[in-house]
Amino acid sequence: MIKAAVLGATGYAGIELVRLLSNHPEVSVELLGSKSFAGQKISDIYQNFRHILESECAEADVEAAAKCDIAFTALPHGASKTVIPALLDAGLKVIDLSGDYRYDDVKVYEKWYNEPHSSPELLSESVYGLCELHRDKIKSARLIGNPGCYTTCSILGAAPLLAVGVADDKNIIIDAKSGVTGAGRSLSMQTHFCECTENSKAYKVATHRHTSEIEQELSNIAGKPIMLSFTPHLIPQKRGILSTIYMNLNKKITADELQKIYEDYFDGEFFVRVMPKGELPETKHVAGSNFVDIGVVLDERLNRAVAVSALDNIVKGAAGQAVQNMNILFGLDEKTGLDFAGYYL
Amino acid sequence: MIKAAVLGATGYAGIELVRLLSNHPEVSVELLGSKSFAGQKISDIYQNFRHILESECAEADVEAAAKCDIAFTALPHGASKTVIPALLDAGLKVIDLSGDYRYDDVKVYEKWYNEPHSSPELLSESVYGLCELHRDKIKSARLIGNPGCYTTCSILGAAPLLAVGVADDKNIIIDAKSGVTGAGRSLSMQTHFCECTENSKAYKVATHRHTSEIEQELSNIAGKPIMLSFTPHLIPQKRGILSTIYMNLNKKITADELQKIYEDYFDGEFFVRVMPKGELPETKHVAGSNFVDIGVVLDERLNRAVAVSALDNIVKGAAGQAVQNMNILFGLDEKTGLDFAGYYL
Amino acid sequence: MIKAAVLGATGYAGIELVRLLSNHPEVSVELLGSKSFAGQKISDIYQNFRHILESECAEADVEAAAKCDIAFTALPHGASKTVIPALLDAGLKVIDLSGDYRYDDVKVYEKWYNEPHSSPELLSESVYGLCELHRDKIKSARLIGNPGCYTTCSILGAAPLLAVGVADDKNIIIDAKSGVTGAGRSLSMQTHFCECTENSKAYKVATHRHTSEIEQELSNIAGKPIMLSFTPHLIPQKRGILSTIYMNLNKKITADELQKIYEDYFDGEFFVRVMPKGELPETKHVAGSNFVDIGVVLDERLNRAVAVSALDNIVKGAAGQAVQNMNILFGLDEKTGLDFAGYYL
Amino acid sequence: MIKAAVLGATGYAGIELVRLLSNHPEVSVELLGSKSFAGQKISDIYQNFRHILESECAEADVEAAAKCDIAFTALPHGASKTVIPALLDAGLKVIDLSGDYRYDDVKVYEKWYNEPHSSPELLSESVYGLCELHRDKIKSARLIGNPGCYTTCSILGAAPLLAVGVADDKNIIIDAKSGVTGAGRSLSMQTHFCECTENSKAYKVATHRHTSEIEQELSNIAGKPIMLSFTPHLIPQKRGILSTIYMNLNKKITADELQKIYEDYFDGEFFVRVMPKGELPETKHVAGSNFVDIGVVLDERLNRAVAVSALDNIVKGAAGQAVQNMNILFGLDEKTGLDFAGYYL
Repeated sequence: MIKAAVLGATGYAGIELVRLLSNHPEVSVELLGSKSFAGQKISDIYQNFRHILESECAEADVEAAAKCDIAFTALPHGASKTVIPALLDAGLKVIDLSGDYRYDDVKVYEKWYNEPHSSPELLSESVYGLCELHRDKIKSARLIGNPGCYTTCSILGAAPLLAVGVADDKNIIIDAKSGVTGAGRSLSMQTHFCECTENSKAYKVATHRHTSEIEQELSNIAGKPIMLSFTPHLIPQKRGILSTIYMNLNKKITADELQKIYEDYFDGEFFVRVMPKGELPETKHVAGSNFVDIGVVLDERLNRAVAVSALDNIVKGAAGQAVQNMNILFGLDEKTGLDFAGYYL
Repeated sequence: MIKAAVLGATGYAGIELVRLLSNHPEVSVELLGSKSFAGQKISDIYQNFRHILESECAEADVEAAAKCDIAFTALPHGASKTVIPALLDAGLKVIDLSGDYRYDDVKVYEKWYNEPHSSPELLSESVYGLCELHRDKIKSARLIGNPGCYTTCSILGAAPLLAVGVADDKNIIIDAKSGVTGAGRSLSMQTHFCECTENSKAYKVATHRHTSEIEQELSNIAGKPIMLSFTPHLIPQKRGILSTIYMNLNKKITADELQKIYEDYFDGEFFVRVMPKGELPETKHVAGSNFVDIGVVLDERLNRAVAVSALDNIVKGAAGQAVQNMNILFGLDEKTGLDFAGYYL
Repeated sequence: MIKAAVLGATGYAGIELVRLLSNHPEVSVELLGSKSFAGQKISDIYQNFRHILESECAEADVEAAAKCDIAFTALPHGASKTVIPALLDAGLKVIDLSGDYRYDDVKVYEKWYNEPHSSPELLSESVYGLCELHRDKIKSARLIGNPGCYTTCSILGAAPLLAVGVADDKNIIIDAKSGVTGAGRSLSMQTHFCECTENSKAYKVATHRHTSEIEQELSNIAGKPIMLSFTPHLIPQKRGILSTIYMNLNKKITADELQKIYEDYFDGEFFVRVMPKGELPETKHVAGSNFVDIGVVLDERLNRAVAVSALDNIVKGAAGQAVQNMNILFGLDEKTGLDFAGYYL
Repeated sequence: MIKAAVLGATGYAGIELVRLLSNHPEVSVELLGSKSFAGQKISDIYQNFRHILESECAEADVEAAAKCDIAFTALPHGASKTVIPALLDAGLKVIDLSGDYRYDDVKVYEKWYNEPHSSPELLSESVYGLCELHRDKIKSARLIGNPGCYTTCSILGAAPLLAVGVADDKNIIIDAKSGVTGAGRSLSMQTHFCECTENSKAYKVATHRHTSEIEQELSNIAGKPIMLSFTPHLIPQKRGILSTIYMNLNKKITADELQKIYEDYFDGEFFVRVMPKGELPETKHVAGSNFVDIGVVLDERLNRAVAVSALDNIVKGAAGQAVQNMNILFGLDEKTGLDFAGYYL
């Protein structure tokens, strides 16, 4: 059994990780780290866990985690930076759910996060944990920067066309819609039920940090620098991200060829489901699962492809992908503990 | 492996059953019966199943089911009555999700359903599948009438006080609120999104059929005839039933004694979680799980107990309880395939 | 024009009052009092008001209000107690939306609020502003205690049977469901979107303060002391309260007679709509309006009436009733500024 | 008083029109036309109208409408084509809510609707009723093609930049999100509550008919042909459209200049509210009102403008704009009956 620590177990990403790990056949959850709830049973905070997992939360300290094989860090921005080097020194593998270890270039981080990086020396070592793209590097990593929710959805939706060089590198537009769990458990006026039910809005237009992650990965795939528009929106549902991606084509192709580019690119990938030609994903098809669904339409009038991708932001966009990364790291079948359908209803 | 047929696989209760069975370690789903979708892949109808279960639906005929060990019948009211005797003749165990085999007395059925019963001879044999109450009889049954969603929630919430004889048999009021999956997949104006979001209402006041199931079981528990008010309400959420149950006490007891009555009654039951004293259930704690959560409050002013019970109407209120019944029938650990937390978010 | 001050203009009840008053043909809103937002334009806080009402909020001080004819106080519990005597001294009429001036007997207040009342001498003067019950006293009042949302809904639903003496005074059960605006604008975990969408729960069982208001008014109507169960529930919608009220009958009556009792009692009332026999109210029929819809069913089996009443908690349950009270106070047609249909969609 | 007929009064656009007209000080609703509900009271179908408007629906025939000054036609696609010429012959003004009379060029209609137009001779006479663009022509029109919901939102959001020639005519992307009332009252699986709550999806990518309306109007504004991507999405709320519009700039401008272009373009328009610089619209700010809110952001990195516009699809996107058109047609103040804030909560 893999001994796992979850640091930051009581945030929304953390608790989803606990839920997935509690069903994982090869994992034993040894430490539920929570600054706010240390000393309380996880099942008193999230009462869905009663009769299933009733361990006490503990201070998320490194000493307590040292007996584990792996630590998942879902800590508030900044906190993970001090803890992670210590966890690595203690010999653990670390999968970090913050943005800190997702970058190839510290300058990109510092520009978009507008602060110095506390441990830039780890960036050269850390691996960007988008499993479908970096599986080989993940296998031997010590430190994985688990991707953001918007980014997984958006990168996978755009990757095939850039990989085969059919998409223009200019004028890529990614318009993404997210459920409210993406905003986390903290209280704010914008997540008050009466303020966000029956409401939709865009936010952080042209400035959202995930833009830089998406550009980094798509640039690597395209083999040339990509700059694009990424616009996040908040919509009144709990789970789910839907990314609508507009890409100009640099040559004429048919709808069948377009479809085949997507099917070929994701051939053999269990967690990416390319929709049959003419069909498009919906968030309810992926909610509660680790799948990404992607459909693509050719707009012949404009010689433009419109790809639509959907995932569950706290599963494939956070906790599920973290488990998938762990499976790869420990040589397990990548699907272990994750091979279930979403709940649809 | 237990070979299972699901007849009526594409309704909401049916598809939830398919989802639970597809994760059950001891079951192989051999037949997905669907009149409407015969010849289509289940994963084309419910796209959450892509890459997980991609079998074709078939006409729900008895011949095809005959190779199975068990059939779950989630057929439209009436249809199950003709199919079930044939399935039994073919040697299968049958768990029926309709109301047809839930009654001790055919007269009660005929009064509340307002039509003659097609196979009354089976009523003496069929067992009411509320597992926590009838576990022993279920073990050796051929035919199980799987309880309704409102009824499981309401019966379990009221049972302890009637069992120990502390509740008055008069003036029991059950006020129940249900999510919209309880109304099923069929189209109707009342389930149109714009008509039922941001809306609540009571319906079938004093006439809902589940009243008769609740009265039958509570009368058995109390050892005397119980007649009560049961009022169903439709509230704007997908999953979940919350029953608020009012019972006059026939003697003075303390809040601690009241709490203990509930804890003792359900002692050792995995799927019934009595809330700690002073806490009450919420539907999000049970959504996606097979648990029933029950809390109870003493109103000293009125010498009345108010019990609140919550479950997921398509899990413990339908598909999950059907699986639990199957586990009992086949001598498996009752929790097999059902020992997971709800998803909370 | 009536000059009005709204003190506490930026809470949910306050802003709904501002919205209604800004459409009222006989009112000019002179003061928007808000401690938190003094100096900011109301249309910057609630951007629905841009181009309609763009006044600045001001400290809710008495001096500023003194030029007005009437003050509506929608202040946090406690704050209204110090302000109101001063407003009265300054010669204003006051309609208070808190619980402070709703009681005939200070002892009842102090028992349910568990603190001493700061201005008990005003209780003998203040009038309980449930317009349909106390219209005559309201006409000449200086100080009106505007009723709570649950209470208006529940009292009106139960009143007819108690008034004619057909209902038993024991065993009255009121099971009420409320939308989330009833919990106000303040941030709390229970009003976080992800915690309350797709969720239902009961709260403050047997202890909710509105119980005492309901009992006071129903006792007056019945001419004898009434004690009853009142259970509030939180359901995932913004607006709307639905009260389901169970009353034993002390003699046999027919469904037609029951219906007639309700129709007669509310004969001529514009804002109370008794449903046609056999129909029941839904919150979407009243949302956005000042109407209360009431339906009633006879359960002949149990000789019990089940009444269901619905209103919009921030209109008839707060701001709309406050306007109705003002209309009565100033001798206007009671419907002025309130004679519109709810928005349904 | 203007005598008005509403043909198709019981669909969602129709009933919202009835609601607005019933509050309009200069209008008397003389005919509620409904094929499905002829002979029934409007207040029995939409019970929010009880005590407010209780007229009977009638067959939507031309003879009955002939006594009116104006007819609003909100009929199923196709039906309006036969009725409208007759209404015009009878001397009425007609405001048609279908797509039939929105086109300058019958070929565009026939291409996107894929059928011949039944009365192409009326197209040269009909005026596209986007009030802010065609106010002068509307004044003297007999027949107005009331714009679609997506189109009003999208055209107004893009217009300023095209009008001043700062936006590139290529690579315009409009990503629009709509509430479910936009799909109308008819039953379909996609509007079943359980299928569309907690769900988002794109649909009719690259093929939605409103694309052609948007292109027609923006081409007129730009003075050259515009072809663009328009992608509609369905999101789980009742009212509201949010359009996110991406436009490349053909020269460098500052954020202040960009803001000023929008403010100048809509200077004096009551129903268009340009957001303060740095702020963006939300659908809850416009729900229930006739306003369009528009914010714009400069993405300096990409020299691209991102405009976000929001409106209520059944008010400014249908019924409200129809009333605004009527006000213009009859020489009333354009705001008459429409000068209220949305309800926010």
